[in-house]
Amino acid sequence: MTAPLPGARTDPDVVRAFARDESSLLDAGTPRAVVSPANVAEVREVMRWASAERVPVLVRGAGTGLSGGALAVAGCVVLSTDRLTAVRELDPNDRVAVVEAGVVNAALNEQARAFGLMWAPDPSSWATSTVGGNVSTNAGGLRCLRYGATRANVLGLEVVLADGRVLNTGGRTVKRSAGYDLTQLLVGSEGTLAVVTAVVAKLLPLPPPQVTALATFGSTVDAAAAATAVMRSGCTATLLELIDAATVAAVDAFRGTGFGESVGAVLVAQVDDVAATAGLLDGVLREHGAVDVMTTADEAEGRELLDVRRAAYPAMQRIGRVLVEDVAVPVSRLAELIAAAETAAADHGLLIATVAHAGDGNAHPLLVVPPGADGEQRAWAAADAVFAAAQRLGGTVSGEHGIGRLKKRWLAQEVGETSLDVQRGLKNVFDPLNILNPGAVL
Amino acid sequence: MTAPLPGARTDPDVVRAFARDESSLLDAGTPRAVVSPANVAEVREVMRWASAERVPVLVRGAGTGLSGGALAVAGCVVLSTDRLTAVRELDPNDRVAVVEAGVVNAALNEQARAFGLMWAPDPSSWATSTVGGNVSTNAGGLRCLRYGATRANVLGLEVVLADGRVLNTGGRTVKRSAGYDLTQLLVGSEGTLAVVTAVVAKLLPLPPPQVTALATFGSTVDAAAAATAVMRSGCTATLLELIDAATVAAVDAFRGTGFGESVGAVLVAQVDDVAATAGLLDGVLREHGAVDVMTTADEAEGRELLDVRRAAYPAMQRIGRVLVEDVAVPVSRLAELIAAAETAAADHGLLIATVAHAGDGNAHPLLVVPPGADGEQRAWAAADAVFAAAQRLGGTVSGEHGIGRLKKRWLAQEVGETSLDVQRGLKNVFDPLNILNPGAVL
Repeated sequence: MTAPLPGARTDPDVVRAFARDESSLLDAGTPRAVVSPANVAEVREVMRWASAERVPVLVRGAGTGLSGGALAVAGCVVLSTDRLTAVRELDPNDRVAVVEAGVVNAALNEQARAFGLMWAPDPSSWATSTVGGNVSTNAGGLRCLRYGATRANVLGLEVVLADGRVLNTGGRTVKRSAGYDLTQLLVGSEGTLAVVTAVVAKLLPLPPPQVTALATFGSTVDAAAAATAVMRSGCTATLLELIDAATVAAVDAFRGTGFGESVGAVLVAQVDDVAATAGLLDGVLREHGAVDVMTTADEAEGRELLDVRRAAYPAMQRIGRVLVEDVAVPVSRLAELIAAAETAAADHGLLIATVAHAGDGNAHPLLVVPPGADGEQRAWAAADAVFAAAQRLGGTVSGEHGIGRLKKRWLAQEVGETSLDVQRGLKNVFDPLNILNPGAVL
Repeated sequence: MTAPLPGARTDPDVVRAFARDESSLLDAGTPRAVVSPANVAEVREVMRWASAERVPVLVRGAGTGLSGGALAVAGCVVLSTDRLTAVRELDPNDRVAVVEAGVVNAALNEQARAFGLMWAPDPSSWATSTVGGNVSTNAGGLRCLRYGATRANVLGLEVVLADGRVLNTGGRTVKRSAGYDLTQLLVGSEGTLAVVTAVVAKLLPLPPPQVTALATFGSTVDAAAAATAVMRSGCTATLLELIDAATVAAVDAFRGTGFGESVGAVLVAQVDDVAATAGLLDGVLREHGAVDVMTTADEAEGRELLDVRRAAYPAMQRIGRVLVEDVAVPVSRLAELIAAAETAAADHGLLIATVAHAGDGNAHPLLVVPPGADGEQRAWAAADAVFAAAQRLGGTVSGEHGIGRLKKRWLAQEVGETSLDVQRGLKNVFDPLNILNPGAVL
């Protein structure tokens, strides 16, 4: 018989609501309870209880993850960060904020904006997803092309270890070479090593006014080559997004944009609105096969051009149920990756439209799950082919969404047995009882 | 009786030459041998031998380290990377180079420059120090203000584990969220976790032409406040260096620069030569207490202004034997840190001049070791006071030089027992026999 867990909610509706993230395919187990600790002391209490009782703990932010990193195992306790929402400190001079794990990305940005600053990580879910969730998956986004993914924007962490001890890592300095970088080890560990309770977030000055360019190409090969050229050119793009032909067609149908069938791919880029840079971008695009280039320094017009990219997901959702994938390759191999996705779509008889953070070689194939009993199976077979292609091209099965429970098999083949062996050893240092998100990642 | 180690050199002169780095204070032990493996297979052979014989191994790059990270323990084998010098690959489209650990920073930059690219980490030792050495200490430099320290510029590693297995971490993609980030754990681990044999280096486009500004201030307080303002302003400085009054006086004496006693501090900054940015920099400096501001877009003139900063170390070396320290604080606390160094100098009767990578809050107090038997002891007592001040101000005892053997005591008080406990656990996963640089860092 187990000891009572203070604050545990066991109402079946509550428990069900906290049992899964936004990933597809795998079912969640039924948690025994949900707890929402309001401070570090309460998190410690939960972990001491869980260690004593040997009960698995699943840390959950907003539940927007797509890789099954927040899928409950049966009988676990879900530790929700929904009450860890304090912005403990925001120091504009040091450009640092200390925020609790449950603070929503948008909320932190709103506070930072008042000082001319921003928290750079901008996953698509930024309006609802949490800073702690970003840390968990090392989330990226559009502008991480320029500012780096979450890991580049975290200076330190406050975490509670599996046994209930508090560990503070890193600190408030931008530079630090003092012992092993536990901060970096914890970023991207998907709740398997420790419970992140607070984040020392690096803030950056808001970017200056931007010039937005939208360029059409005859093919993804041309567009990807142009993206590679932009990245070599030194024009420091703030974002550089690619939309393939299938996406363009879906957006045309959804928004009436009228690109038409001759457009094989679109690139959307933003750079600082300074003559040298904007001119360089325009020149590079035109020299590298762009058919048409629209450029604007007007903010509203720029937003409209970028909306073509942002419309991709809703446009695809109108067609059917969409499985969002996440692979990354060296930037010069992006066209080959998209071609592999097209082949997989044909082989398995489904629609795959690909959008990509082209400057980082990070592609999101959007797979439309076909109707019928074997639809999901066919979608996953196609995804499997895309994963294999990413790895064959020197890439990875996750650029920014994480491994979770969905991609464990592919992680093993990507990193190899020696790496897995070391990673299991690290897991054991932090979580010898294997109670933190057991079965995820490794 | 131990088995023979192939390729071992035991000539006392050779052994002595490889026994230590450029740190002061601690004596090195006498290694039993030096080996210079020419490839990964030979490194594996050394590690298998060392594991079987339980012999400590000290990995050594160019030996330019300042924290005693490459000080031999008696009876160890020094594994020199001086024959691991192949640039295996340099791909300008992916902006990636795969280089062996012993490749000199300057050599990699020379090859990259032919493609309009660079390897950003630029420690002062860059002309002779190695890429592997940068990885070992997470080395920084002047321009890491803009491009990040070594850790931000490494995409993957090839390492040989203590037991001789090869581990490949990361890869050639800019983004990756696939399992624990072993690359980041290994960067900055100072040869205590594994032998780095090759580095997947992220290359960046060369910066555009720069505007250089040199501003004089009445005090370090004013100069540091201006540095903080520059960092908040969004003008994206490529470098931002501070020179305190003691350094200005030494440079005046050495180079005849004629700043004079009224100058309490100097800032040197570089930004991209675009009107918006250069104007912003000039304005921010003037609004924040600059007495005189000299600005130039001419490359040679810019180099002359920057030479004022570069002259600091040779200027101090003319005065006496210099101990270079390395501490970092949140940027708004820099003036307090420099004041603490001045107090320590007065308390212990020696000269301390401080130069700082001001934008990152990373200061290098240059301590002139007083003549006499107790000179070194007094210098270290003063350094101790500076370390304590850095920690009190929310900073660290190492911004970019590492902990090595010299700063272990201070690391313990900086990170605390829980962190040390976890770090010892990690060390044990990688090096259960404790043969890799034993006694360093932890």
